Amino acid sequence: MSDLWQGIDKISYVGNKGSLKSGLGFQYYNPEEEILGKKMKDWLRFSVAYWHTFDQRLVDPFGDGTATRPYDKYTDPMDNALAKVDYAFEFYQKLGVDYLCFHDRDLAPEGDTLRESNANLDKVIDKIVENQKATGMKVLWNTSNLFTNPRFLSGAGTAPSSKIYAYACAQLKHSLEVGKRVGAENYVFWGGREGYESLWNTEMKREQAHIAKMFHLAKDYADEIGFDAQMLLEPKPKEPTTHQYDFDAATTIAFMKEYGLDKDFKLNLEGNHANLAGHTYQHEIRVAREAGMLGSLDANQGDKLIGWDIDEFPSNLYETTAAMWEVVENGQIGPRGGLNFDAKPRRTSWQAEDLFYSHIVGMDSFAAGLRVAAAMKEDGFLDDVLKTRYASWDEGLGKDIEDGKEDFKSLEEKLLDTPQAELRAATQSDHLEQIKDTINHYIIQTLAK
Amino acid sequence: MSDLWQGIDKISYVGNKGSLKSGLGFQYYNPEEEILGKKMKDWLRFSVAYWHTFDQRLVDPFGDGTATRPYDKYTDPMDNALAKVDYAFEFYQKLGVDYLCFHDRDLAPEGDTLRESNANLDKVIDKIVENQKATGMKVLWNTSNLFTNPRFLSGAGTAPSSKIYAYACAQLKHSLEVGKRVGAENYVFWGGREGYESLWNTEMKREQAHIAKMFHLAKDYADEIGFDAQMLLEPKPKEPTTHQYDFDAATTIAFMKEYGLDKDFKLNLEGNHANLAGHTYQHEIRVAREAGMLGSLDANQGDKLIGWDIDEFPSNLYETTAAMWEVVENGQIGPRGGLNFDAKPRRTSWQAEDLFYSHIVGMDSFAAGLRVAAAMKEDGFLDDVLKTRYASWDEGLGKDIEDGKEDFKSLEEKLLDTPQAELRAATQSDHLEQIKDTINHYIIQTLAK
Amino acid sequence: MSDLWQGIDKISYVGNKGSLKSGLGFQYYNPEEEILGKKMKDWLRFSVAYWHTFDQRLVDPFGDGTATRPYDKYTDPMDNALAKVDYAFEFYQKLGVDYLCFHDRDLAPEGDTLRESNANLDKVIDKIVENQKATGMKVLWNTSNLFTNPRFLSGAGTAPSSKIYAYACAQLKHSLEVGKRVGAENYVFWGGREGYESLWNTEMKREQAHIAKMFHLAKDYADEIGFDAQMLLEPKPKEPTTHQYDFDAATTIAFMKEYGLDKDFKLNLEGNHANLAGHTYQHEIRVAREAGMLGSLDANQGDKLIGWDIDEFPSNLYETTAAMWEVVENGQIGPRGGLNFDAKPRRTSWQAEDLFYSHIVGMDSFAAGLRVAAAMKEDGFLDDVLKTRYASWDEGLGKDIEDGKEDFKSLEEKLLDTPQAELRAATQSDHLEQIKDTINHYIIQTLAK
Amino acid sequence: MSDLWQGIDKISYVGNKGSLKSGLGFQYYNPEEEILGKKMKDWLRFSVAYWHTFDQRLVDPFGDGTATRPYDKYTDPMDNALAKVDYAFEFYQKLGVDYLCFHDRDLAPEGDTLRESNANLDKVIDKIVENQKATGMKVLWNTSNLFTNPRFLSGAGTAPSSKIYAYACAQLKHSLEVGKRVGAENYVFWGGREGYESLWNTEMKREQAHIAKMFHLAKDYADEIGFDAQMLLEPKPKEPTTHQYDFDAATTIAFMKEYGLDKDFKLNLEGNHANLAGHTYQHEIRVAREAGMLGSLDANQGDKLIGWDIDEFPSNLYETTAAMWEVVENGQIGPRGGLNFDAKPRRTSWQAEDLFYSHIVGMDSFAAGLRVAAAMKEDGFLDDVLKTRYASWDEGLGKDIEDGKEDFKSLEEKLLDTPQAELRAATQSDHLEQIKDTINHYIIQTLAK
Ligand SMILES: [Co+2]
Ligand SMILES: [Co+2]
Ligand SMILES: [Co+2]
Ligand SMILES: [Co+2]
Ligand SMILES: [Co+2]
Ligand SMILES: [Co+2]
Ligand SMILES: [Co+2]
Ligand SMILES: [Co+2]
Repeated sequence: MSDLWQGIDKISYVGNKGSLKSGLGFQYYNPEEEILGKKMKDWLRFSVAYWHTFDQRLVDPFGDGTATRPYDKYTDPMDNALAKVDYAFEFYQKLGVDYLCFHDRDLAPEGDTLRESNANLDKVIDKIVENQKATGMKVLWNTSNLFTNPRFLSGAGTAPSSKIYAYACAQLKHSLEVGKRVGAENYVFWGGREGYESLWNTEMKREQAHIAKMFHLAKDYADEIGFDAQMLLEPKPKEPTTHQYDFDAATTIAFMKEYGLDKDFKLNLEGNHANLAGHTYQHEIRVAREAGMLGSLDANQGDKLIGWDIDEFPSNLYETTAAMWEVVENGQIGPRGGLNFDAKPRRTSWQAEDLFYSHIVGMDSFAAGLRVAAAMKEDGFLDDVLKTRYASWDEGLGKDIEDGKEDFKSLEEKLLDTPQAELRAATQSDHLEQIKDTINHYIIQTLAK
Repeated sequence: MSDLWQGIDKISYVGNKGSLKSGLGFQYYNPEEEILGKKMKDWLRFSVAYWHTFDQRLVDPFGDGTATRPYDKYTDPMDNALAKVDYAFEFYQKLGVDYLCFHDRDLAPEGDTLRESNANLDKVIDKIVENQKATGMKVLWNTSNLFTNPRFLSGAGTAPSSKIYAYACAQLKHSLEVGKRVGAENYVFWGGREGYESLWNTEMKREQAHIAKMFHLAKDYADEIGFDAQMLLEPKPKEPTTHQYDFDAATTIAFMKEYGLDKDFKLNLEGNHANLAGHTYQHEIRVAREAGMLGSLDANQGDKLIGWDIDEFPSNLYETTAAMWEVVENGQIGPRGGLNFDAKPRRTSWQAEDLFYSHIVGMDSFAAGLRVAAAMKEDGFLDDVLKTRYASWDEGLGKDIEDGKEDFKSLEEKLLDTPQAELRAATQSDHLEQIKDTINHYIIQTLAK
Repeated sequence: MSDLWQGIDKISYVGNKGSLKSGLGFQYYNPEEEILGKKMKDWLRFSVAYWHTFDQRLVDPFGDGTATRPYDKYTDPMDNALAKVDYAFEFYQKLGVDYLCFHDRDLAPEGDTLRESNANLDKVIDKIVENQKATGMKVLWNTSNLFTNPRFLSGAGTAPSSKIYAYACAQLKHSLEVGKRVGAENYVFWGGREGYESLWNTEMKREQAHIAKMFHLAKDYADEIGFDAQMLLEPKPKEPTTHQYDFDAATTIAFMKEYGLDKDFKLNLEGNHANLAGHTYQHEIRVAREAGMLGSLDANQGDKLIGWDIDEFPSNLYETTAAMWEVVENGQIGPRGGLNFDAKPRRTSWQAEDLFYSHIVGMDSFAAGLRVAAAMKEDGFLDDVLKTRYASWDEGLGKDIEDGKEDFKSLEEKLLDTPQAELRAATQSDHLEQIKDTINHYIIQTLAK
Repeated sequence: MSDLWQGIDKISYVGNKGSLKSGLGFQYYNPEEEILGKKMKDWLRFSVAYWHTFDQRLVDPFGDGTATRPYDKYTDPMDNALAKVDYAFEFYQKLGVDYLCFHDRDLAPEGDTLRESNANLDKVIDKIVENQKATGMKVLWNTSNLFTNPRFLSGAGTAPSSKIYAYACAQLKHSLEVGKRVGAENYVFWGGREGYESLWNTEMKREQAHIAKMFHLAKDYADEIGFDAQMLLEPKPKEPTTHQYDFDAATTIAFMKEYGLDKDFKLNLEGNHANLAGHTYQHEIRVAREAGMLGSLDANQGDKLIGWDIDEFPSNLYETTAAMWEVVENGQIGPRGGLNFDAKPRRTSWQAEDLFYSHIVGMDSFAAGLRVAAAMKEDGFLDDVLKTRYASWDEGLGKDIEDGKEDFKSLEEKLLDTPQAELRAATQSDHLEQIKDTINHYIIQTLAK
């Protein structure tokens, strides 16, 4: 292996005796270890996001970028773009991940025309494909940036200008071709500006019909060229716009059903977006998996006292346990899903080595969550809670109702003279405090092993 | 007219020269006046909510009720319930509304069995029907309280106990019969506890299937007895539970589609609930109307710096203008919709006369909103904004795309060599600040007339 | 010991091998064990809140109480009040806490006059004092309920009516006398309605001057009768009112300084209130301890996606670790402080045994937090982080600045020609992700021991 | 006048008959008109913010700048900086404002050393002073940007590095000298990064002591050079950092008192910051004015459903009326205060003319607010509300309490046997709904004149 990220060796599993304070190593992520009959790496399928990890300069609305990166010395944009590919692939190797994600504009500089932009991109893709061959790295998903350039100031698939919309379609076309070249397993649409600043000047329904059509055209073209990626929509409620159409999982599923997209598209869900929509990450994953719509996961966390998208690397074990519980219940993240770190170090963690610290805490936190979820599953702890709580539906009256054997009249007959005390006796305490205590217990005992 | 609410005369339209400070009277609500070809009273169809206006004692989680009401002298629960009917109908007459809304348990005390509860309720309904005949008052909608009694501590249609579920169905059955007796135009389901406290002990999908079945059974029974009310679901994201299934309009529409309820059910939307879900009231109404799902409106407002449901009487003219703009665009609130004041005076506005002040500010604020919306419509102000903004879709390339004549390849051909400057030239400024200024102008100039 | 709470034995420390799922017992709370040179029970000084644990019926704004308690059979209010004392003291014994907290109106029913209310209260206090003698139980603090009764609808110390204010003072007088009788170590003021619904009708400054005077009169009277409790104010930003004057720790400290109360009063801080004010609990404790104003702690947690005060029992180990870190840094909670569970089980955890589960998870979570904080302290982990980060202030230029030896001119001279690169070199990465990983490590490794 | 902003004539007062839709003009702002004995322009003292109006490219975290400005043709940074001065002063003239505000780094490009940066800045200041002489334009306040450059990534006055702190002091020194040159009436400190990302690595008290010292040094140096500006601190709760020390008005006042800054410093308050802290703008102004700490106002508005700082131009008449009510009660904004538009057009309002629309809606909204507040003052409407509500404090018992003639014992004597009914009779209804109706009435009737 080359040594572009100097001073960093390949990160290996060292077990839970040391922390990052004492050196780089995984405490919980042991890729080949089997959990519930499957290797950890196959449950988790970690992916690094090109835009955050290699492009993000750690700017914020009140400050210039603070990041220092070893490839900052390449000042020509194309030189920089090409050099970065080497740095990226060495980073993947040293970190020990199998997947990457990228969008088009983070790989190569934009030209004055789409033809020029495509040409720039293709050069970088050539190098990526070459590196893939050498390393076996796979692309979890790729996407197209349809929100940064000023031409997209009012959206792309929902642009008020049909010319901008048409341009977005053309840009997407090439991005799908790129996806095919790199063998992307999924293709993601995040609707950064697909929403509104104000309802007063917005034809919401018309805009939604436009973007639904764009998704259909994308699917058609993917089929045409034989790019068989799973298509995914990524919900987010707001930021940059005041309101984005793909507000949350439920809203996006409603949209997909309305426009006949629910057969071909699934969801890519992000933790920080869940919170901005007023939900837990677990809730969003549950909604998607129960609807058969769970596609893939963007792994990050927000700060619930903060109202914007901070895309922190995940470290909260309660949240990773809850997310991985849903994954365990689902049997997998999604047919081709993975955990993509759509996350960036804090602006104050600006050194190159912080990129390693950040990914390790993210990977270890999800690996820990998997271990805890698996332990709760193996012991039947939560299955017992549910079985007891819903027992009255598994036989007798409950079963009859589920089987469609009862109606309002038959039920009234049975309940008309039931006294309050008997009704009250049919209720159970949830013992939620006991459940929380037990989850704490599982976290500590499982992770200490 | 009797004079149970002493010191209050019938409220009449006095025009905009005086305010409530100088005496009771409507400044903007002139029921027979025509606006956009329809009487104000037919656009607005105001309704008074029995539970808040006549039952609410103005308690809060840290305080006992402060309300003083003229019927407080009736101490026996049934006496009180029967007396209140007279007070209610005189209130409607003095206020000048044509509709009321009620649930079952706010009309009459609960007995030990459903049979007893029904009997209590029926006595009050007898008196209501009598009063309806005498006054012509109509019922906008009725509903059933399936959340206050401890038996419903974990929900009714989503109760973990099938017996509680069965009881809820039986209670609903009678409530539908009551609806038929009073000629209710709609029937509302608000899912107060139909959600979860914790996902760890919840089978979300199973619970949703159960309540969907309950809605189907309700519709079936309504059909059976010839109660042809429009069925409505009322979204709310949380409170009392941590998460309620009918989170917002989009989520509820998704649920209805999933379970085949979208043909028979529509939405009843509340302003404060919209805010708790992270939306404006206008947004929720827009979502519903564009989906053909707008049924009726609960008129109230929240405080956006407060995280719980305060159900304030609406007074914010920006919000009532936006709501009525959507109604004007829709041609009506809904096929049988109205504006029900699901609102209570502040706990510090505890006098009987505050009930009049409160309803007047609510009615006048919506009447004002209607006047402003109509003026903007008549001048074509917002229609022009939209027409200009989306002009590129009405012909040429945009029309071809909408007509399905383009695909990714044809669009790439057209755009591949378009320079950035030409793309940027296709974007327009929104002039949002100019639009806000113009809306202020319409509010002032219309209402000053 | 009697056996009023049937089926519950004295809770003992069983270590971390079992959870509440397998039986009642403490995993982390071992009262006599020494941590950092002090017994756990002396670090933590747990207290049970009478109002929540024994009075709270588990109502919410949309539902009646669900609680079932073994003393529900006593239907006469005074009988119930007196019987409850026995249940309470057995509860303390079985749980193994040394402190209780109460307000006046939760102990005994209110009479028509203050004289009657005081007489009722005194009878219950007699029994409490008797039980204290028998058991050695101490009172962490008492307080007076000046917010539930409708007379306090616009506040007590900030009431617009001077008569209500005067009554509040008289009620407080007796509450101070009660405090002296039971030997309360602190006396708390929580300003439930000391704030405003609307600024339009509020003389904020005058109201604040009134309540400041009430606090002074209270301190004067306490001194006069020889009740030497530490006086405490408890901040909360809102609920029940729109805005409460004691918004958060910083605001309350500003108020105390403005009115000369900062010598005699300190703060009682609650976790859920911190979140409602937009802060972490750790932040509020830090603000108070650095100002020398940390008095005592109300132990509970909120749900950061919920905008009202849920007063959940604390179970989040991140939050208890952070809170106990501040306590460890402070050397103690406060001169006479403790951890009072101002917390209630969820409305769905309505059984008597849930009171035990709830307190155990609360006590264990704070005991766990203490263990983790102590381990981080003993290893010098966070001290090292701070020492490194602020090293430039401990000598040379930084020390000169701190010592007042520099001014703008001397500093300009030194920095006027410093190039950007040298400035940038003076900044450090925070490595925040590494720190979070290390805290996770401490939680797991410490608690697994 | 030159014509750099082509197509725009001087904006004049046209009265309320037309809106911005029909052409540029003020509906409510008539600078020479007297309101409550003072010219409108003297009540309002509008100021344009250089950074937002002339520098802001309308970027957001997900998008590049969209703004097009007539001076974009100047590509050399110093050429651009110098040219912009002419555009700025013509803008002021055409808009009809008397004040500007600026910080150091928005005027001129930064050099490699402070000496170079100062030299660049001085050239632009020369031109500004020249333009001031020609036009009579005054500087409401200037400030120093201590947050954008990466060297300030962890703060300036609270930087962990003493070298960065020292550099900040040196930068401030020159900024004060600039203030003196341009005759700035105030000098503002906004603590963009003066706070923390995490408490785990922060010595909060030490950092606060450092910045307090910096403020003292700044005041000392201003005195030394005879720059007699009013010093102002601008609170903001968060963004860019997780928590900023100057959280809100009350917190900042507490800080000033703790460090002896309250004699020399006052507050500059911003509407959007108030909302992010959980307050209304009116609340923050009230807190400041009642503490004698109101210095100046940053005029903008947020969106209460959005959790980040959008700095919208103010258009909400409820908010401007409330803010101007507080100003009217205060007699003036502050001794040298004004209304500075710390506001930017929406990213979708990117044309040069939107800068005019935006400022006009902002100026007109505050002028309207002044008119409404004055009308309510002249009629004594709110004074009557307060007088009635607090009447019991103006004589008898209330006066005795205020005069210190009562204590707990004397009050107990008076209230011990007062029955509940008499206490309840001492409470009043707030009639808050009536008040809101009346405010609506004042808005419409005043502005329609
Ligand atoms: Co994100
Ligand atoms: Co994402
Ligand atoms: Co509501
Ligand atoms: Co409602
Ligand atoms: Co609380
Ligand atoms: Co508390
Ligand atoms: Co701002
Ligand atoms: Co500002």
